[in-house]
Amino acid sequence: MVPPNTFTGAQLDRAGPRRRDAAWVQERLHDPASRTLAVTRDGILVSGEEEPQLVRLPLELIPGGAGTTVLLGVEPDGSALFAVDVEHVHAHRPLTPGARVLGLREAGALLPQEVGGLAAYASALLGWHRTHAHCARCGAVTDVEDGGHVRRCPVCHGEHHPRTDPVVIMLVLDGDRVLLGRQPSWPRGRYSALAGFVEAAESLEEAVAREVLEEAGVTVRAPRYVSSQPWPFPSSLMLGFTAEYAGGEAAVLDGELEDVRWFTRAEVAAAAAAEASGTWEATDAGATLLLPPPLAIARRLLDGWLAGD
Amino acid sequence: MVPPNTFTGAQLDRAGPRRRDAAWVQERLHDPASRTLAVTRDGILVSGEEEPQLVRLPLELIPGGAGTTVLLGVEPDGSALFAVDVEHVHAHRPLTPGARVLGLREAGALLPQEVGGLAAYASALLGWHRTHAHCARCGAVTDVEDGGHVRRCPVCHGEHHPRTDPVVIMLVLDGDRVLLGRQPSWPRGRYSALAGFVEAAESLEEAVAREVLEEAGVTVRAPRYVSSQPWPFPSSLMLGFTAEYAGGEAAVLDGELEDVRWFTRAEVAAAAAAEASGTWEATDAGATLLLPPPLAIARRLLDGWLAGD
Repeated sequence: MVPPNTFTGAQLDRAGPRRRDAAWVQERLHDPASRTLAVTRDGILVSGEEEPQLVRLPLELIPGGAGTTVLLGVEPDGSALFAVDVEHVHAHRPLTPGARVLGLREAGALLPQEVGGLAAYASALLGWHRTHAHCARCGAVTDVEDGGHVRRCPVCHGEHHPRTDPVVIMLVLDGDRVLLGRQPSWPRGRYSALAGFVEAAESLEEAVAREVLEEAGVTVRAPRYVSSQPWPFPSSLMLGFTAEYAGGEAAVLDGELEDVRWFTRAEVAAAAAAEASGTWEATDAGATLLLPPPLAIARRLLDGWLAGD
Repeated sequence: MVPPNTFTGAQLDRAGPRRRDAAWVQERLHDPASRTLAVTRDGILVSGEEEPQLVRLPLELIPGGAGTTVLLGVEPDGSALFAVDVEHVHAHRPLTPGARVLGLREAGALLPQEVGGLAAYASALLGWHRTHAHCARCGAVTDVEDGGHVRRCPVCHGEHHPRTDPVVIMLVLDGDRVLLGRQPSWPRGRYSALAGFVEAAESLEEAVAREVLEEAGVTVRAPRYVSSQPWPFPSSLMLGFTAEYAGGEAAVLDGELEDVRWFTRAEVAAAAAAEASGTWEATDAGATLLLPPPLAIARRLLDGWLAGD
């Protein structure tokens, strides 16, 4: 059984209908039971070295100069949870003793499943505000509404919602072998699933076929959806597929990858075993396969394939 | 066998890598073999009453005052296909004799599968330009690049891509019955699948569970992806699921629906049969089920369920 994808599993009622009620949101902002997470461009505030925990601060501890505050939802204990952008205040004066900024990738790797999900949600929503203060329709500065889930333009009245960019990511399978690609910036030996943004008016299945053909010159059939994963760097939603090889010679085509090649199931299994036992080594020839990290849905797809799911 | 979803199947090489080459795009713009579709806010230009066909115009026929021109890609015969926003010029002087604007929903219903896909693609891409001329980061007017697939900010250098909003749409199944909902604005008797936008940092499976709980007060398990459909009104991507009923009493909760209720397989089958034979009638009691139109993925999901897929 492959574990759930990282960045899923936040245990929170997002309170979608209630957050449209501005009075209710205001009450939560002033409720002494409410807490807030604190987010910067680089990550999220945690405390504790060995077992880091998300810092949940009373809202009155947030200084006036802090950035946007958004309502994440209501926690299982009934208290409201917010997230605040402390980019410009935390560096000057730590908000609480012992707190430090943990990068979001590290948060996904180190924190319990559902806590990683919360960190991703807070980072994604505040990242959107950081880059979408203006109305794309008319350019005016927009107002924050619905607890931070809407920005509305006071000039043209355009309503703007957080952006989520769907990305297809796929294992191309041909019997006992899988097609993987490599980006030039990756650590030596690393290969991972092909991936790309879904384009305008394209089904997921069409995006899978187009990306594989564009990146690797290969045609596929029978795309099969496996699972999905939020990937808030800054706002992607990874949609994991397998697809069957149909034809063509695998080759690098579009310049984003430096190599594409087939790996046998035995090679992938050996790479997973070497990693698990700590015996993985980069060779001078660079031939030893380094799998994508467990954080990535690509690894879950490969683990699922190895497990025969 | 359920037919493919409407608005999929455009037969076109989107030329993703090549369109980044501005010189290549310019050559296509001046190639006498290139053609363009013509799009307005209300639909797309077609000719012919009985069997409407998309109007493909030589680019030199487009007057100077027309809006954004985007490269859709390369057609199977090797010629480039563009789309141009003629909102402000077509009303004054028809671009070509006999051409008329066909609404996009009608285009999806009347045109062959792959032609409907082209119409959706052209409308989605130009709709994005119509509402995203400004940089969301700084408010400046952005420049069109990559054949219309990127807008770049000359001030802050932000790069903006067409927006695609993922929406989950799901049949909640409980043995031989299905949970459907009804919006107040719909024709009498119509019920359809529950649906809602995927939120920031949420997996598709989490979005399915959240939306069903928010809209109908019901919990689900085992969400299963079925298929996807571009829904360019203006930029949604419908992600069709089934999910198994787990608990709760179905009731309207969030104000978007006016009713949610269970229908048996026999009721859904009777509605499909009545529609097919032209015997469907609204009763005074409003109790006769009117299924969503074949255009909608909700109908494909229901047809698939009836067919036992």
